[in-house]
Amino acid sequence: MSLLVVGTVAFDTVRTPFGVAEKILGGAGTYASLSASYFGVKSRIVSVVGGDFPQKHIDLLKSRNVDLEGLEVVPEEKSFFWEGEYHNDMNSRTTIATEVNVFEKFEANIPAAYKESDYLLLGNLHPAIQNSVLEQMTKRPKLVVLDTMNFWMDNAWDDLLATIRKVDVLAINDEEARQLSGEYSLLKAARTILTMGPKFLVIKKGEHGALLFSDDDIFFAPALPLEDIFDPTGAGDTFAGGFIGFISKTGDLSFENLKRAVIYGSAMASFTVEKFGTDRLIDLSDEEVSERLQKFLTLTKFDIQL
Amino acid sequence: MSLLVVGTVAFDTVRTPFGVAEKILGGAGTYASLSASYFGVKSRIVSVVGGDFPQKHIDLLKSRNVDLEGLEVVPEEKSFFWEGEYHNDMNSRTTIATEVNVFEKFEANIPAAYKESDYLLLGNLHPAIQNSVLEQMTKRPKLVVLDTMNFWMDNAWDDLLATIRKVDVLAINDEEARQLSGEYSLLKAARTILTMGPKFLVIKKGEHGALLFSDDDIFFAPALPLEDIFDPTGAGDTFAGGFIGFISKTGDLSFENLKRAVIYGSAMASFTVEKFGTDRLIDLSDEEVSERLQKFLTLTKFDIQL
Repeated sequence: MSLLVVGTVAFDTVRTPFGVAEKILGGAGTYASLSASYFGVKSRIVSVVGGDFPQKHIDLLKSRNVDLEGLEVVPEEKSFFWEGEYHNDMNSRTTIATEVNVFEKFEANIPAAYKESDYLLLGNLHPAIQNSVLEQMTKRPKLVVLDTMNFWMDNAWDDLLATIRKVDVLAINDEEARQLSGEYSLLKAARTILTMGPKFLVIKKGEHGALLFSDDDIFFAPALPLEDIFDPTGAGDTFAGGFIGFISKTGDLSFENLKRAVIYGSAMASFTVEKFGTDRLIDLSDEEVSERLQKFLTLTKFDIQL
Repeated sequence: MSLLVVGTVAFDTVRTPFGVAEKILGGAGTYASLSASYFGVKSRIVSVVGGDFPQKHIDLLKSRNVDLEGLEVVPEEKSFFWEGEYHNDMNSRTTIATEVNVFEKFEANIPAAYKESDYLLLGNLHPAIQNSVLEQMTKRPKLVVLDTMNFWMDNAWDDLLATIRKVDVLAINDEEARQLSGEYSLLKAARTILTMGPKFLVIKKGEHGALLFSDDDIFFAPALPLEDIFDPTGAGDTFAGGFIGFISKTGDLSFENLKRAVIYGSAMASFTVEKFGTDRLIDLSDEEVSERLQKFLTLTKFDIQL
C-alpha cells in the first residue's frame, strides 16, 4: 500500500517554559510522514525546501523509509520557517514569525510514480493547491484525508468548499468546525459538515481528545493524560499521519476501523509532545507503541450491563 | 442504603441566549438529591431555605422521594439566590448576583436519624461547615464525597485542607485541581492531591468530560455530544448526585464500580443541561436513562488487538 503526503517540510523555532529549540526540523509533512512510517507503509512526500535545508534532515527522513522523490530543493531559496512561543499552560501559543519563503511558489507537482498512490493526506496548505493535487492523481485514491485551518476559511472560502467537496475525511479542530458550519454544538456542526462532501469528520480537541463522526455514528477518543507536555508542535500532524498510516496498513475503511485509526493517531501524537520537535518520533519501538495503546484501552474501558 | 446530601437549596435566575428563567428552583443540594433519587436510594437532605420558598418546590422534592426532615425553614429570612448569564458559546458565564441570605447563619445541624447515613455527599459550602457535618456523624459513612471550589482555596485554605484530609472522594474541576496541587499536568496534580487525603479524585471538565484517579489507575469519561446545551446550571451537582447515588445503590467501592458511577453521573448531567433548571430531572424514565448509558458505551467503545 502506498501513501502520499503533501505538506510542509520546514524549520521551526519553538519557545516553551522549559527551553528554546532553534531552527529544528518541522512542518506538517515531516510530522505526518514520520508518524505514518511506523505502520510499515511507504510514505511518499511532496514538498519543497530551500538550499539551507541540511542533509541530516534528509537522511533522517530516509532512515524512516520516507520516499523523497517528491521533495524539491530550490538552492537559491530559503526553507519555510515558523517561530512560536508556548505560554505557561502549554495550551495557548503566540506565533512570532511565519516566513513562507520557498513555499510562496510551491505548486505541488506530483511525480508520475506517485499519481496512483492508494492513500492521500493533504496537509494544511492553500485549498487550491490541495485541489490541484487531487486533479493530478491518475487514479482516485481509496481514501483522501484533508487537514485545513481557520486561515483558509477567512481567506479562501470558495476554494476551500470546492476542495472539501472532493475528500473523504476532513480533520479540523473544534473552533474550525464551528466556523465552517456556523453551528456551536459540535453534533450539529458535524451533521452540517457531513453534507459538504466528506464521509468522515475528525474534530481534534488537543488535550481534550478527538471526535470521529460519520452518518449517525460518533466516536470519542481522549488524549492521554501525560506527565508533561513538553512541546505540542506537530501533535495534530502526527495524529493525521498515524491515522492514515494505520488505515493504509489495514486497508479497511469501516467506521470500526477508523475508530482504531483515531486511537493510533492519538497514541502517536502523545509521543510527539513529550520532547522537542520530532525527537520522540525518530526511534519508537513496537513495544512503546503497544504500551501506549494499552493505556488508551485501560483509560476508556468500562462495563455497564443494560 | 441511606444517602445524606448537604448542600444549598436555592433560587436561581438563569439568563441564556435562548431565554431567561427567573427565580427557579436551584442549588447544589437540590440537583444532587434529585439526581440520586433515580437510583432507588432514599436521599436525606440537610439545608436551609427562607419563608419565600414555595410549597410546590417542597412537594417536588418529596415526589422524588427526598427526605426533607433536615430542610430547615426560617420564615423571616430569604432563600439563597444566584443569578447568572451564559454567553453565546454556553461555555462561560458571568455571575450577576449571589445573595447568601439564610445561608449566612447555616450550621448544618444533622438530625439524629441522619447521623448513621451510609453515604455522604458534602456539596460546595464553607469547608468548616463540611467538617462539622463529618464530626456530627456517629458512624463513619462508607464513602464521603466532597465538592468544593476555587473560592475556598482563596479564602479558607487551612480549613479546606483539614476537611479534604478526611474524605474519600474529592470532586473538583481542572483549574481547581491545578490550583490545589500547584501542578499544571493533571496527572501530576492528581498524584499530589491523592497524598492529601482522598483515595479517589474526580476532575470534572464540563463539556470535555471527567477523569477519575486512584493510586495508579486513571479512567476517562467523555461528556456526551449534545444537540443543544440549553442551561448548564447544576450539571456538576447532578453529576455528583448520580455518582454517589449509583455507588449507594450498588455498595461497591472498587475502582471498576467507581468508573461506572462516573458514567452514570455523566449521563444524569447530560439530561440536566437539556432544559432550564431541574426541568429535565423531574420525570426521567428508566428507558431514557438506559438509552443514554448505551450512548456512552457506543461513543467510547473500540477494540484493538495488541
